[in-house]
Amino acid sequence: MFNQITVIGIGLLGASLAMGIRRHNIAKTVKLWARRKDTLEDCKMHDWCSVCEEDITKSVVGSNLVVICTPVESIPRILDEIAPFLDDHTIVTDVGSVKGDICERAKAVFKNSTSSFIGSHPMAGSEKSGMKYATDSLFDNKTCVITPNCSNEEKVQNQVEYFWQLMQMDVITVSPQEHDEAVAYFSHLPHLISSSLAKTLYSKPNDWIKVSGNGLRDTTRIAEGDPSLWEQICFMNRKNLIHAIEEVESTIDQVKKSLIENDKDELLSVLNKGSEFRKGL
Amino acid sequence: MFNQITVIGIGLLGASLAMGIRRHNIAKTVKLWARRKDTLEDCKMHDWCSVCEEDITKSVVGSNLVVICTPVESIPRILDEIAPFLDDHTIVTDVGSVKGDICERAKAVFKNSTSSFIGSHPMAGSEKSGMKYATDSLFDNKTCVITPNCSNEEKVQNQVEYFWQLMQMDVITVSPQEHDEAVAYFSHLPHLISSSLAKTLYSKPNDWIKVSGNGLRDTTRIAEGDPSLWEQICFMNRKNLIHAIEEVESTIDQVKKSLIENDKDELLSVLNKGSEFRKGL
Repeated sequence: MFNQITVIGIGLLGASLAMGIRRHNIAKTVKLWARRKDTLEDCKMHDWCSVCEEDITKSVVGSNLVVICTPVESIPRILDEIAPFLDDHTIVTDVGSVKGDICERAKAVFKNSTSSFIGSHPMAGSEKSGMKYATDSLFDNKTCVITPNCSNEEKVQNQVEYFWQLMQMDVITVSPQEHDEAVAYFSHLPHLISSSLAKTLYSKPNDWIKVSGNGLRDTTRIAEGDPSLWEQICFMNRKNLIHAIEEVESTIDQVKKSLIENDKDELLSVLNKGSEFRKGL
Repeated sequence: MFNQITVIGIGLLGASLAMGIRRHNIAKTVKLWARRKDTLEDCKMHDWCSVCEEDITKSVVGSNLVVICTPVESIPRILDEIAPFLDDHTIVTDVGSVKGDICERAKAVFKNSTSSFIGSHPMAGSEKSGMKYATDSLFDNKTCVITPNCSNEEKVQNQVEYFWQLMQMDVITVSPQEHDEAVAYFSHLPHLISSSLAKTLYSKPNDWIKVSGNGLRDTTRIAEGDPSLWEQICFMNRKNLIHAIEEVESTIDQVKKSLIENDKDELLSVLNKGSEFRKGL
């Protein structure tokens, strides 16, 4: 059990995290910081909030663990902001879905510090955003990727791993670089493909929705996700993502050619591989 | 209530249809035909099967309504086969997901007949195929598109509409041509996009699946659908589908360019329109 944990940013993930910390009795005190005053006011009404802080630098004082749950683009800046105010030997982590830039910045920020940063990416979320959709079971039985860099001590790494395990997550460890390449293909690319499909259908007659079924609903579900959050994620991982888009473009082109050239075997080979991949998920 | 209905082809849709006919008491007798003997043997064990026929031409004798539930490519040929054996004034329909070619063929086949054909496309299905996944509620509260051609009498159209309403479906009427264009965009395109994404990820390290979540599972769910059925559907609707693919390719290219050129507003505009479309589903 931790003595005090700070959660910075109280959206879907931050609020669900605070709820989970309370439910699993992971910390005696849970201190929260949110950018908006009305969010902090809301937090005060819940048993998963011990203390609310309007000043982000004060919110980290006295904590053994700080978890940054703000939009991914803001995380490097927040590391700069809070670092001078951390107690000795504080562990900082986050929930950002891109890790390279954040871990690079953290390396510089914590270079001469007794405190340390290890990136985390809990694979939990929803197309809905905001505190009102938060639940204390959002993280249960999901995977959490942690991305230590070479300077992280084993003891610190074990602590972060232990924290996510207390949150009922399966923890895996990969480098920030491999994490970002993997999520480009397995998370960010599906999002952009889903959004591109939905945007293409946006201009079609509204009546045509009647000929769609669960297939379209499922394929486009994630396109509903908060556009400004996803814009940030995509740009933070743009190099990997451009490669991933080029690969899927080449597959779609292969499909189009098979139809133009009446090549049934070629189309069938794409459909077969796609079906096989999906069965393995 | 119909006196006798024949269901031709006993896969997921045919078996679910026979079950529904029994459950809603739509016909006194339900006659079934399947290509495979072992499927017919299975059918005999169920109360939703009154009579099994190995000979397709015999299976239609004495029926007021015949519903063809075989793979879409085989439907025109089956129309040729059964037409000479229909009773007078029999109504024939189908469940094929492409209507243009089928309705054209039916026009010729039924030109000098007292019997008639109206195309149907019940928007029900699953990524699973085969009789073992059939349920008597597969069609409940879904949309069924019927695609009469100009020569169809109103009385016949009303009968087909009535049949699907008894199956608990909402019936809409559009021309075969508009149906095919609409399904190209709202059903077949999502399938090919889902398959193309899944095929692209097929060649990536298996470990990377761990960084995926429900987003990938949903986006690729329909890619699991029977490849040979989907190859048939896509080729029967290839002209519309080629146009649809070109449109989504241009959106994906717009996304790629926005990342290459660091144009956040451009990416945001695609994400916003995609999100708005999905909220409207």
